[in-house]
Order: sequence, then C-alpha cells, then structure tokens
Amino acid sequence: MAREDFKFFHDFRVRYSEIDGQGVVFNAHYLTYFDVAITEYFRDLNFDYSQYPEKTGADFHLVKSLVNYERPLLFDTEFQVGCRTQKIGNSSIVFVLEIFDKDQSERYASGEIIWVNTNQTTHKTERVGDEIRDLLVGFEGTGIIQ
Amino acid sequence: MAREDFKFFHDFRVRYSEIDGQGVVFNAHYLTYFDVAITEYFRDLNFDYSQYPEKTGADFHLVKSLVNYERPLLFDTEFQVGCRTQKIGNSSIVFVLEIFDKDQSERYASGEIIWVNTNQTTHKTERVGDEIRDLLVGFEGTGIIQ
Amino acid sequence: MAREDFKFFHDFRVRYSEIDGQGVVFNAHYLTYFDVAITEYFRDLNFDYSQYPEKTGADFHLVKSLVNYERPLLFDTEFQVGCRTQKIGNSSIVFVLEIFDKDQSERYASGEIIWVNTNQTTHKTERVGDEIRDLLVGFEGTGIIQ
Amino acid sequence: MAREDFKFFHDFRVRYSEIDGQGVVFNAHYLTYFDVAITEYFRDLNFDYSQYPEKTGADFHLVKSLVNYERPLLFDTEFQVGCRTQKIGNSSIVFVLEIFDKDQSERYASGEIIWVNTNQTTHKTERVGDEIRDLLVGFEGTGIIQ
Repeated sequence: MAREDFKFFHDFRVRYSEIDGQGVVFNAHYLTYFDVAITEYFRDLNFDYSQYPEKTGADFHLVKSLVNYERPLLFDTEFQVGCRTQKIGNSSIVFVLEIFDKDQSERYASGEIIWVNTNQTTHKTERVGDEIRDLLVGFEGTGIIQ
Repeated sequence: MAREDFKFFHDFRVRYSEIDGQGVVFNAHYLTYFDVAITEYFRDLNFDYSQYPEKTGADFHLVKSLVNYERPLLFDTEFQVGCRTQKIGNSSIVFVLEIFDKDQSERYASGEIIWVNTNQTTHKTERVGDEIRDLLVGFEGTGIIQ
Repeated sequence: MAREDFKFFHDFRVRYSEIDGQGVVFNAHYLTYFDVAITEYFRDLNFDYSQYPEKTGADFHLVKSLVNYERPLLFDTEFQVGCRTQKIGNSSIVFVLEIFDKDQSERYASGEIIWVNTNQTTHKTERVGDEIRDLLVGFEGTGIIQ
Repeated sequence: MAREDFKFFHDFRVRYSEIDGQGVVFNAHYLTYFDVAITEYFRDLNFDYSQYPEKTGADFHLVKSLVNYERPLLFDTEFQVGCRTQKIGNSSIVFVLEIFDKDQSERYASGEIIWVNTNQTTHKTERVGDEIRDLLVGFEGTGIIQ
C-alpha cells in the first residue's frame, strides 16, 4: 500500500492525553484513530450507519484489529489517516488504514480492521447488505469483491 | 477530610496508559478512578445499581465533578481511593473522594462528584429512593441527610 | 458567562470511543476536551508552550479541575469549546471553559481549570512570567489581572 | 493456544469508562489490558523494566499489535488476561495474550504483541540482552528461542 491507494483521508492532531511516558502516542490510541477514520469514511460516502441496525436487523462487529507501528507519533503532530475497503466477503468487510504525516510523505503506521455483519436476533453472521455493498464498490471499484 | 473519615477504600495501581508526557497521571484519569471507586463503594454496600433504573423509573446523572490535584501520581504507583457519601439532598447525592498512597500516609488528590436522580420519562429531578437512602444512611450515619 | 464572553473557540466532534453505556460522553473526557482547548488557545495566541520550561526554569501544573455537566453530549455531535483566561494571580492562571453546540445556541457544560507555575528546581510556586502574562492580558484585557 | 499454555494470568474487572454505546468494551481498550498484563508478567518474573534502558542503553518498542475479538466483554465483568512469551528472536520478543472469563472456561479474545529491542543512541535494532533472555527462557522453557 502507498498513499496513492487511498481515496479518503481524515485529519488529526495528537492530543496531549494520548501520549505516554515516552512522549509518544500510546499504542491503544491508534485503534481510536482507526475508528474515527472509518466513521468519517462512511460519512464521506453519505452512508448513515446509525440507521443500519434498524433497516437490516443486523449490525457490524469488529472481529480483528492489527497495527504495525513504524515511527513514533509525537505530541501535537498533525497527521492523516487513510482508509479504504480492501475486501468485501460474504459477511465481512476488511478495511486497510494507514497513518501518514500531514504532507503524506512519511508513514507512521499501517493496519487492518475487520468487521463481520451479524444478525441481531440469531447472532449469526449474515451477508453484507446490498446498499452498503454497492456504495463501497462504487467508491473503491469492483476489485474489492471477494 | 482525613483518611479516618472514610469507611471505604478501593485499591488501584497506575497503568502505563494513564500517564502523560510529564510521566504523571493525566488529569482526566482521576475521574475514571473516582468512577470506579463509586462503583465499588456500591458493590461493597450490596446495592445492585444495574437494577435501579428498572425498579424506580429513574437514573442518576453526574452533574458536577471537582478534583484538587495535590501531588503527582507516577507510573506503577499503588494507591487507594477513599469514597464516602457526604450528603443526600432531596434529589442529589454528594460523594467525596480522596486519593491516598498505599499506606494512607500521603494524599495525592481530593474531589467531589454530585449525582442527581432523574425521572427517565419526564427528565425531571426526583427524590432519591428510600432503598438507596436507607443503605447510605445505614453505612455513613444520619449526619449525611441534608 | 455566555458565549459572548469567549474570544476563542475550538471545534470538536464526539468520537465513538468517548461515549459510555448510556450513549453519552463519559464524564472524564470533558477534561480531555478542556485540555485540547487550552492547547489550541495558546496556539492561537502564538505562544510556544513547549519552550516555556526551558526558557523560564518553571512549568505549569494543573491543580484544580471543575466540570458542571448540563446536557448530555451524544455520539457524533459537533461542538465547540470556548476558552478564556479569567484571572492571572501571582503564580496561578484560572481558565474558564464552556462547551456549546456547533451553533453556540445551547450549552452542554461549563468548567474551570487552574494552573500553578512551579519552579522546576525548587518545586515551589513562582510568579507567572511576563511573556505569557502580557500575551494573556493583551488578548483578554487588563480585567484578568488579580 | 488454550488456558493450559499460560503460566501467568492477571485479574481485571471491566470499568464503566471502558464500555461504549453498544455496552461492550471498546476495541482499543483490549490493548490497554494487554499492556497491563505484560507489565504484571515482568513484575511476576521480578524483572525491573524501569532499569532496562539505563543498564543496556536500549529500550523496547512495540512494533505490532493484533487482537482477535471473539465474544463481547460487558461492563463489570471479571476477567483474566493470560500472558506468555511465544518467541525470542535476535532483537524481538513475541508475546501471546488471551482474555478469559474469571473461571477460565470461556475465551473473549486473543492477540499478539511484538516488541523490538532498539539501541537508544543509534536507533537500530539490537540483540535482546541476556538478563531478560535468561529470565524468559527460565520461565517459559527453551522452546521460545527462535
């Protein structure tokens, strides 16, 4: 992956509350950045996630998170998180996220988040609905269909 | 207030994720410690808070927090949070919280949390129910009734 | 205080990681918002806080936080935090902070943060330096001098 | 991996501040639990991590985190995090962590944390020192040497 592979970025600045005793962002906060980036990615696509459970009877659960920490992120640093959908399987969506500096010339971290679509009544996995499927394919291209 | 004024303490140890770039606990986390201490205080009193909204149609909302930071809390420090009910008003409960070292010989911080009992339907404040009132007076004494 | 009393506001949006089981922002995170707002307030004044300890041999310690929670802040809400210096004493600075909705027509919370200037060698309180004093008086007016 | 594979567990209880709007622990906090568990694992081994940078001129950096979320963790749940060293390479240590319920009969999550030993002057990776190597091999067995 390189920055050219992302069509969506969200801007952040490191908060003082996020750095630890070594003066760098504590590892857990990268997942919060990823979470915000995915929220903003769907906002950018005009997808109203809040309606999803009611409309479909299903909801997404996060089943996997992966972060590769490449360079330390320091207090007050402005950075961008790139988010893209890498794959849509039958019931899962795989997001790839990467953290770049403001000018996107250096990468701080990369990672992956996997969601599984789960029926709220049966608690079983369920095919990802067509609305979100079409939206993601429309934005990222047909290459993401697994 | 001194440590003798507390009948309840809960033990903690500072997590690495809680310290900031100055190597001391970031100010916001004191409120998390207070929150955990109040939860454990009610557990100690055998009060099942999770049943309260259903039983009474009301719930408590936190309306005020106050922290006086006296000494820095460092990574890995073992400490105790003392919790007591200072006052029960008609619809409010005032908790006093203090953070001591493990041996209770030094104080790191003191503070106050105020809860207001709110009817979940009308969203108006409502008299604190008798069950919790009796429990707190039984533990702390009649001096807490305002 | 009203929104007219603030010359500085910083924009936020509630992160999913900040809400709790009641679907509202957990109380401790308000202090993180206040902390970010004060950082941005000094950035707006072109004050380079990171140089302060080296230049003066002193540093500020947060000695008091106060939050009054007025209305619940929900997930995804856009809000603004107003920050102003209310008073400069000999060694202390009192900040007043208020949280408004995006249009500044409703207030969610108000609070206060007090910093004390402390000599890094003697660990004693010390007069707030002239550079920061002049900057704050220049921005807020002479009324803040205590 | 199964619970029998762990010689070390650390006890936790879910804090209210850690759950999100779905009433379950927010995904990022699992990394905080892992971090605390590794700290306690080294304490159990009587390894004084705080001395490591000074003694060796090197320090460990977290380069990878992985979490598989299997069952939701609810507010107030008592749980245990098992920690073991899976491998020591030349400059890296791989920890495996799993989250079980209090009775260790159900698993909530599993994951991996990788540390790399880095020279603090050259910022290059460096062989993990013998003291920590011997300690981990003594506890986990020679099978962890890669």
